[in-house]
Amino acid sequence: MSQDFPPFLLDGYRSFMTGRYNSERDRYRSLAENGQHPTTLVIACCDSRSAPETIFDCGPGQLFVLRNVANLVPPFGPDAAFHGTSSAIEFAVVHLEVSDIVVMGHGRCGGIQSALATAAGNAPEGNFIGRWLNMVKDVAGEIEANHLLTPAEQQTALERITIRQSIGNLMTFPFVQSRVKAQALSLHGAWFDISTGELWVMNGESGDFARPDLSMRETPEPTG
Amino acid sequence: MSQDFPPFLLDGYRSFMTGRYNSERDRYRSLAENGQHPTTLVIACCDSRSAPETIFDCGPGQLFVLRNVANLVPPFGPDAAFHGTSSAIEFAVVHLEVSDIVVMGHGRCGGIQSALATAAGNAPEGNFIGRWLNMVKDVAGEIEANHLLTPAEQQTALERITIRQSIGNLMTFPFVQSRVKAQALSLHGAWFDISTGELWVMNGESGDFARPDLSMRETPEPTG
Amino acid sequence: MSQDFPPFLLDGYRSFMTGRYNSERDRYRSLAENGQHPTTLVIACCDSRSAPETIFDCGPGQLFVLRNVANLVPPFGPDAAFHGTSSAIEFAVVHLEVSDIVVMGHGRCGGIQSALATAAGNAPEGNFIGRWLNMVKDVAGEIEANHLLTPAEQQTALERITIRQSIGNLMTFPFVQSRVKAQALSLHGAWFDISTGELWVMNGESGDFARPDLSMRETPEPTG
Amino acid sequence: MSQDFPPFLLDGYRSFMTGRYNSERDRYRSLAENGQHPTTLVIACCDSRSAPETIFDCGPGQLFVLRNVANLVPPFGPDAAFHGTSSAIEFAVVHLEVSDIVVMGHGRCGGIQSALATAAGNAPEGNFIGRWLNMVKDVAGEIEANHLLTPAEQQTALERITIRQSIGNLMTFPFVQSRVKAQALSLHGAWFDISTGELWVMNGESGDFARPDLSMRETPEPTG
Repeated sequence: MSQDFPPFLLDGYRSFMTGRYNSERDRYRSLAENGQHPTTLVIACCDSRSAPETIFDCGPGQLFVLRNVANLVPPFGPDAAFHGTSSAIEFAVVHLEVSDIVVMGHGRCGGIQSALATAAGNAPEGNFIGRWLNMVKDVAGEIEANHLLTPAEQQTALERITIRQSIGNLMTFPFVQSRVKAQALSLHGAWFDISTGELWVMNGESGDFARPDLSMRETPEPTG
Repeated sequence: MSQDFPPFLLDGYRSFMTGRYNSERDRYRSLAENGQHPTTLVIACCDSRSAPETIFDCGPGQLFVLRNVANLVPPFGPDAAFHGTSSAIEFAVVHLEVSDIVVMGHGRCGGIQSALATAAGNAPEGNFIGRWLNMVKDVAGEIEANHLLTPAEQQTALERITIRQSIGNLMTFPFVQSRVKAQALSLHGAWFDISTGELWVMNGESGDFARPDLSMRETPEPTG
Repeated sequence: MSQDFPPFLLDGYRSFMTGRYNSERDRYRSLAENGQHPTTLVIACCDSRSAPETIFDCGPGQLFVLRNVANLVPPFGPDAAFHGTSSAIEFAVVHLEVSDIVVMGHGRCGGIQSALATAAGNAPEGNFIGRWLNMVKDVAGEIEANHLLTPAEQQTALERITIRQSIGNLMTFPFVQSRVKAQALSLHGAWFDISTGELWVMNGESGDFARPDLSMRETPEPTG
Repeated sequence: MSQDFPPFLLDGYRSFMTGRYNSERDRYRSLAENGQHPTTLVIACCDSRSAPETIFDCGPGQLFVLRNVANLVPPFGPDAAFHGTSSAIEFAVVHLEVSDIVVMGHGRCGGIQSALATAAGNAPEGNFIGRWLNMVKDVAGEIEANHLLTPAEQQTALERITIRQSIGNLMTFPFVQSRVKAQALSLHGAWFDISTGELWVMNGESGDFARPDLSMRETPEPTG
């Protein structure tokens, strides 16, 4: 019956059951009975190299995770069609009442690469990606036109710019804005360097990205 | 600078760096240089209890993961607005040329619960979730109206029905349909029971869900 | 003289005599002299794969067992004709004063299958089965009409729905109802999965079926 | 959830799973996939001391078992109400095409005792047992009136007479009669002595009951 189900997934599942699930049986049971109460929504890319649970070493129940191409957030627009992204944000903020939203981008992002290629006149084949990346068309065009930056610099720049833009778009959602103003919700940016494994965190005021000083973290701080 | 970044994420990241990244340093470097070549797209729910990388014990580069509320796939509709879901599918199939797509639902799904509540006349607050769940409005209405099933039975039934519907909708994408017909792409359904940790795999012909016989998997098969 | 008596039954009987009976000789003698005092009535299907004594590993004197097609209980109706089922229930409750009644259904039930086939317009040949299954005609029709469920899902759903219906019908018997209200009698539902050997037990409040946690049963509890 | 489910049943089930099911896993799986093909219908009493699977040491798939009070078979009567007994016979003969039907009575039968008590003017309390035992009212009356027999002799006599009557009633079912005449179906009588564990088999011609000579059964005969 599951003959054609990808065997590596069945092998992985077996190792999950004998490993993690086995040691966290009670946690799963209680998460099933009491429901999920994640404190954080992570908006990440579909990229196979940037799974939030892996990068933040999180277990079941910790992260509500939305993943789309290039971790983009559209501006508030209740009249538009299928709102996969917006409904996930709404569900996390309004119903799960998360206290934090992290928009996490990453290096070598194929979506951002396509946005730059489109700006350069080489739009990727297909009906959807182009439309989806329309959200970052203007900033992509502006960066692509800046020939002082190398292609790699353009890519990294756009990856970070779109994180700032997504956070800006989050603030156009009334239910986000009101909670942020009431200090019930914080918005964060992060960028993951696949090659070095480095996590760069965005400064909320300046929008700059820098590596957090983990040496300060010998003992976990109280969640702030 | 990263004072307000959720501390548990920084702690988790540090443990990722000293643990997994440290032992997979070369893999990350090569994934950065050579790009990602995942064989499988997993369409899963945002739910904090159903991370595909955890359930399938997969590492970096293995799974291209789209996550939205209730792991739904809209029917093909290039003229509609922001197509987060469709563009991720297009990217995985057309650009990454994955060989398998797994639609993975799970028990106690809050999205499915909302769909049933909406069908029962108790639509959840908000602008987006309702619209997003319109995709399953008809089937939700039909199941909710069947009072021979207990609420829990209605929920499980709808969770599985929507997986079948999402797989049906995948086939409305010309680039999916053609590859499936050419046997270059396989579509699969799976359902994860949060409480027991059980994975139920869908039979492609009948649409029924059953637990794969893992005892048959002493030695990993070649991926077929 | 017994030439035409099925030989495998005589062989089985001989092994019973040299085995079980031999080791339980005293128990049989005392059960003969002191009469039977089973605490539990099990209403099960005639199916050759679901013998209660086998599934519950019970010995002589433990279970009073009524077996009919699809383990059905008709509603109270003293004026109707031959009441094989009702008289067995009456005998167990009024005369043997059992403390528990278990209605045990099972997967792949031929009776339930016939009920669905009848609802689909393919009534089985014969004079009696159709009449007998009239008891579940309405619920079978409602489930059969739901084409969101696969045939196998319809079958399992109806198997469980009819268990709930039989328990509901048990409560229409005044001598059952009064004892249940006086907490002298408990009604239970169970469903046996022939393929996996799993026993699913019904939750008395919700009517949902789930597998009991046998790990909790290191030491037998006092019967409650 | 299964808190109030009789604990001895859960314990018995656990021992079934670790014992019999574990050693017959494949047999159960194949019985589930290929369906049941029992060769024999046993019509037995609900009595907790006379489980056919125990007495004939039979495993899953061997016996289709109908159990009612006093293992009675009503005469053919398609116009009457709920026909639990007749539909089980019809299912076994017409649909499963069994080759043998065994009506198995037993000593100390409470149903037969009630029939004699009723004949003596001491009808048991209740609405159903009396009606059910109407089937044997005449023969019970005749035996009860014969004061040359001790009460114990009356009981044993009636137990055996009703077995012969049930076999006679089986022949009033056209689908039974035709198959018996075509030698596709054989009818047998058996009587089990709870106290001594003795099985008495009925002689098809004379109707007498005697113990089969098991010494002749060193090597199983071919089924005849």
